[in-house]
Amino acid sequence: MRVREIIERHPRSIYVDREVLVRCAEECFECSATCTACADACLGEPDGAELVRAIRLSDDCADVCDATGRAVTRQTEPDRGLIRAAIETCIISCRACAEECDRHAAHHDHCRVCAEVCRSCEQACNDLLALL
Amino acid sequence: MRVREIIERHPRSIYVDREVLVRCAEECFECSATCTACADACLGEPDGAELVRAIRLSDDCADVCDATGRAVTRQTEPDRGLIRAAIETCIISCRACAEECDRHAAHHDHCRVCAEVCRSCEQACNDLLALL
Amino acid sequence: MRVREIIERHPRSIYVDREVLVRCAEECFECSATCTACADACLGEPDGAELVRAIRLSDDCADVCDATGRAVTRQTEPDRGLIRAAIETCIISCRACAEECDRHAAHHDHCRVCAEVCRSCEQACNDLLALL
Amino acid sequence: MRVREIIERHPRSIYVDREVLVRCAEECFECSATCTACADACLGEPDGAELVRAIRLSDDCADVCDATGRAVTRQTEPDRGLIRAAIETCIISCRACAEECDRHAAHHDHCRVCAEVCRSCEQACNDLLALL
Repeated sequence: MRVREIIERHPRSIYVDREVLVRCAEECFECSATCTACADACLGEPDGAELVRAIRLSDDCADVCDATGRAVTRQTEPDRGLIRAAIETCIISCRACAEECDRHAAHHDHCRVCAEVCRSCEQACNDLLALL
Repeated sequence: MRVREIIERHPRSIYVDREVLVRCAEECFECSATCTACADACLGEPDGAELVRAIRLSDDCADVCDATGRAVTRQTEPDRGLIRAAIETCIISCRACAEECDRHAAHHDHCRVCAEVCRSCEQACNDLLALL
Repeated sequence: MRVREIIERHPRSIYVDREVLVRCAEECFECSATCTACADACLGEPDGAELVRAIRLSDDCADVCDATGRAVTRQTEPDRGLIRAAIETCIISCRACAEECDRHAAHHDHCRVCAEVCRSCEQACNDLLALL
Repeated sequence: MRVREIIERHPRSIYVDREVLVRCAEECFECSATCTACADACLGEPDGAELVRAIRLSDDCADVCDATGRAVTRQTEPDRGLIRAAIETCIISCRACAEECDRHAAHHDHCRVCAEVCRSCEQACNDLLALL
């Protein structure tokens, strides 16, 4: 994503390894979009009743990932405690959504993709958290 | 806010004391709107350079409060660990924003209001967290 | 909502009648929260299959109302053409969601409330649009 | 972005050329992230006072692009009138932000990147609008 190019040109010094930070921001935005799409794909399935929990957790994960992605993207005067807490919440949200989507992966390929993206975002968040 | 009326008519049983939950949801949405407005009011001040940190923390707080308000509002198949983490992040975000806005309260009355709303949201989050 | 107090203390002159503007901002945030809650209440209903379109339109309306509420709230250096377009989209979104929720109002009281809130937001948007 | 893989696996038939739709959704999410980053980079510049309008329009554009990206991404029971209006608002928002960021492109390379991303998003929106 091109958000990387903005962060590379930011006037303030980045408070942590830039590559790890950029990857976390990108994964959060990616995961927010993917969870929005998967919640909607689940809603459109004929067996939607089976997918109620997947829809709910994808809705939460889309919102949490978007807020976390925005907070991680900003480099001006960050509050480290807030960034850390936001990332921890994002990890919990991605894990919950991945676990539920995995349960439906055999029947719904969009749930398999969503679970993969959630786990990738969880990993990128863990990598950044380790540096904070 | 009328979101209360929806939660009172929700088909699933609420997983925690309803009054405490509704108040937390309302305060999160209120605080998100207030922080959006205060960030913009700070941006419009002639001494904007003094307010850079207030703007940044209000931006974060607006996003975190919105995501938390949405997650708390939803009653269908919640993940308690996720709700707890989201509320904890919201508490940290409201506290950071309130502390910074308090530093400018004497010169900018909108910062005084914003700090009050953040502290009120922090309290409502703490009250819900105590029940989870 | 207390966002009103921030707008009343904003350093820049408001570009339109303040009372009409504040009411539009408040209604947008109110409607975003209500639609988030109604989408989730519909998802939790045993006859969720009947409510798929209501969920989808409430999801859209929650997102559109939040973005519009934020844009209307900001008073620093607005672009009038953008504010006008955002409000027009919000009107269309509120109308579509209200029409669909009305179809379910007899069976689901949360849909009745949601339709009322959407129509109230639509009216507040129309009132502001008339001044722009 | 991997949101494409979800849309390709969506159970409902896509209501318009899939490639054009996916590209519009991706560009909206990309532009939302980029505008969030550029608003923050502008805020961190020593000459922030010159960049007040760029910050404000980037804030609006981040919010509008996110809401539009979500609405375009959803394929279940869409309201075409709403999708059309959302895209039109996104076009106006991207154009306003690009014009302002272009004014600062010579001094701030992040503004040059942001203007490019906004124009690319505007084009993707126009391409989708032509099919609706």
